[in-house]
Amino acid sequence: LGLGLWRRQTALAAAREDEEDGELRQRFMAPPVSGMRELRRRRRELRSRMELLIMETQAEVCRALAALDPGASFSVDTWERKEGGGGISCVLQDGEVFEKAGVNVSVVSGLLSEEAARQMRSRGKSLKAKDGKLPFCAMGVSSVIHPKNPHVPTMHFNYRYFEIEEADGTKQWWFGGGTDLTPTYLNEEDAIHFHKTLKEACDKHDLKLYPKYKKWCDDYFYIKHRGERRGIGGIFFDDVDSPSKEEVFQFVKSCAKAVVPCYVPIVKKHRNDSFTPEEKLWQQLRRGRYVEFNLVYDRGTKFGLLTPGSRIESILMSLPLTARWEYMHTPPESSKEAEILEVLRNPKDWVH
Amino acid sequence: LGLGLWRRQTALAAAREDEEDGELRQRFMAPPVSGMRELRRRRRELRSRMELLIMETQAEVCRALAALDPGASFSVDTWERKEGGGGISCVLQDGEVFEKAGVNVSVVSGLLSEEAARQMRSRGKSLKAKDGKLPFCAMGVSSVIHPKNPHVPTMHFNYRYFEIEEADGTKQWWFGGGTDLTPTYLNEEDAIHFHKTLKEACDKHDLKLYPKYKKWCDDYFYIKHRGERRGIGGIFFDDVDSPSKEEVFQFVKSCAKAVVPCYVPIVKKHRNDSFTPEEKLWQQLRRGRYVEFNLVYDRGTKFGLLTPGSRIESILMSLPLTARWEYMHTPPESSKEAEILEVLRNPKDWVH
Repeated sequence: LGLGLWRRQTALAAAREDEEDGELRQRFMAPPVSGMRELRRRRRELRSRMELLIMETQAEVCRALAALDPGASFSVDTWERKEGGGGISCVLQDGEVFEKAGVNVSVVSGLLSEEAARQMRSRGKSLKAKDGKLPFCAMGVSSVIHPKNPHVPTMHFNYRYFEIEEADGTKQWWFGGGTDLTPTYLNEEDAIHFHKTLKEACDKHDLKLYPKYKKWCDDYFYIKHRGERRGIGGIFFDDVDSPSKEEVFQFVKSCAKAVVPCYVPIVKKHRNDSFTPEEKLWQQLRRGRYVEFNLVYDRGTKFGLLTPGSRIESILMSLPLTARWEYMHTPPESSKEAEILEVLRNPKDWVH
Repeated sequence: LGLGLWRRQTALAAAREDEEDGELRQRFMAPPVSGMRELRRRRRELRSRMELLIMETQAEVCRALAALDPGASFSVDTWERKEGGGGISCVLQDGEVFEKAGVNVSVVSGLLSEEAARQMRSRGKSLKAKDGKLPFCAMGVSSVIHPKNPHVPTMHFNYRYFEIEEADGTKQWWFGGGTDLTPTYLNEEDAIHFHKTLKEACDKHDLKLYPKYKKWCDDYFYIKHRGERRGIGGIFFDDVDSPSKEEVFQFVKSCAKAVVPCYVPIVKKHRNDSFTPEEKLWQQLRRGRYVEFNLVYDRGTKFGLLTPGSRIESILMSLPLTARWEYMHTPPESSKEAEILEVLRNPKDWVH
């Protein structure tokens, strides 16, 4: 009788798990790369929890954006990487509100050369490999949203997790990520809202995080040859492996949950703003700078382009639909164009 | 009496020289960076002859392009480099025929770090510096022409000369350059004309040059992450320092003189071709690839962006006025778009 009860309970539990899996899967844009069964099997491991978080974030952001641009819809592509793993790319192109919006998830694993592993860690820690190869696992959600209206800013976010196993079996792990805003024109209220929402997400974990990662963001998104930042910043961090795996994960989760409240109110506020052809032109010139940063400086893009077997279309999804370069374009003094340039040259503190 | 005659002859010779200088200067787009007097003083030196050649080439190409696009005109900017030297940038923007056409001359000199000198030589020869610094002189003419009509191809050329002085006073010198074509659609007749004109310029000097530099061009203008070349090639060479300074200079001169006959007939033939919005869109997508090559791979651009004191607007003049990136754009099989892609993936021999 006892055994019968246990069996029935086990069967019930399995049915409940299947049902839960089904619900989760329905919420996601596509089945997760590692498979629901595998994720459940190793559900206590951080890489499983992170994979669920990036899947949830992808779905949440796609749904929020689709709701803002009712005529448009996301195309969903799942892809596999020959060397291990794969990804899900969701792209909305040429909508009413968004020119190009992409939200990618990738979960890849395999063996890294010592050289490639060194390049992945921005601080370049040394890693001891067995036969020159290191088993690794890398996953992340990454997104760039380029709206049509020049009064709606471009937004980018990326949250990622890495694990590398050294020759003696010790595992190194770290998180990276950030969320940042690139307006065509400065709107101080929007800038404050964006930074304040990020600061609140950071402050729940440690009051030191926002100022540190705000500065890191201004330093990272720097177009050196122009002497300008790509946008008005946000937060950025890389190679974070303290205080503990659990605490960093909780912080990353808070940041990921802050993406929609950071950005959606700004889109809602401005998506129907009227604009002039001159404003659209300035937006196109700023898109050109966006391309310059991403192709010349962005570590993720460079790493992706150099990695054999990486999916180029997903990496270059970050590029705008259209961009423009004019020789010697200089906005007139005291213009709205000069106003944003000033902030890109000398970043401001938006919240204290 | 003899002395009087000599004096009179000297005065006459000086007057004639001044007149010649005046004519030369009038032919050029702006006074040469080194000044006419200085160029005459060291007129036997190769760097002077090369500076005159690049000035002549700039003027010749600008005049030929302006004649093709009568409504438009070149803006001429002269600029100085704080660390030594300067340049002349001629840009025609938003004409009837040309979307953006730039022809730059730069003549710079100063001291290079050993590291920078190593980067300048593609074969990475070692150079012995005095106190870690090497006196150098670098000059070149460089041009990118982006037409409006998708049936007129983009053309690029660049001819350059370097001198570096080692600690023991020995001077290393080398030439580099090339001319290449980037059509939106394949026109075999044009491809053959372009390559044939280049081959004829090369063949006057050595029959081995064209096949060698044609292959070098296909290898150099390779967008690795796309598995495509930027265009249908032409010639490219770098680090050339044999058989002799004079012979390489004469070869470079022939190449520079071939620019106008290579390209102008193609522009004339197609500038009034009708085109569809779809053809314009494909041109814009190909412009995106042009940007990818220039920002991710081009050695000259990368070197320029990293060099303190370089003139960014002149370096990035090579970027098109407008470009486009669509996620997962794939032309239908057997289309005209697929036809050019095939040639970009598998370069052809156009002349034998």
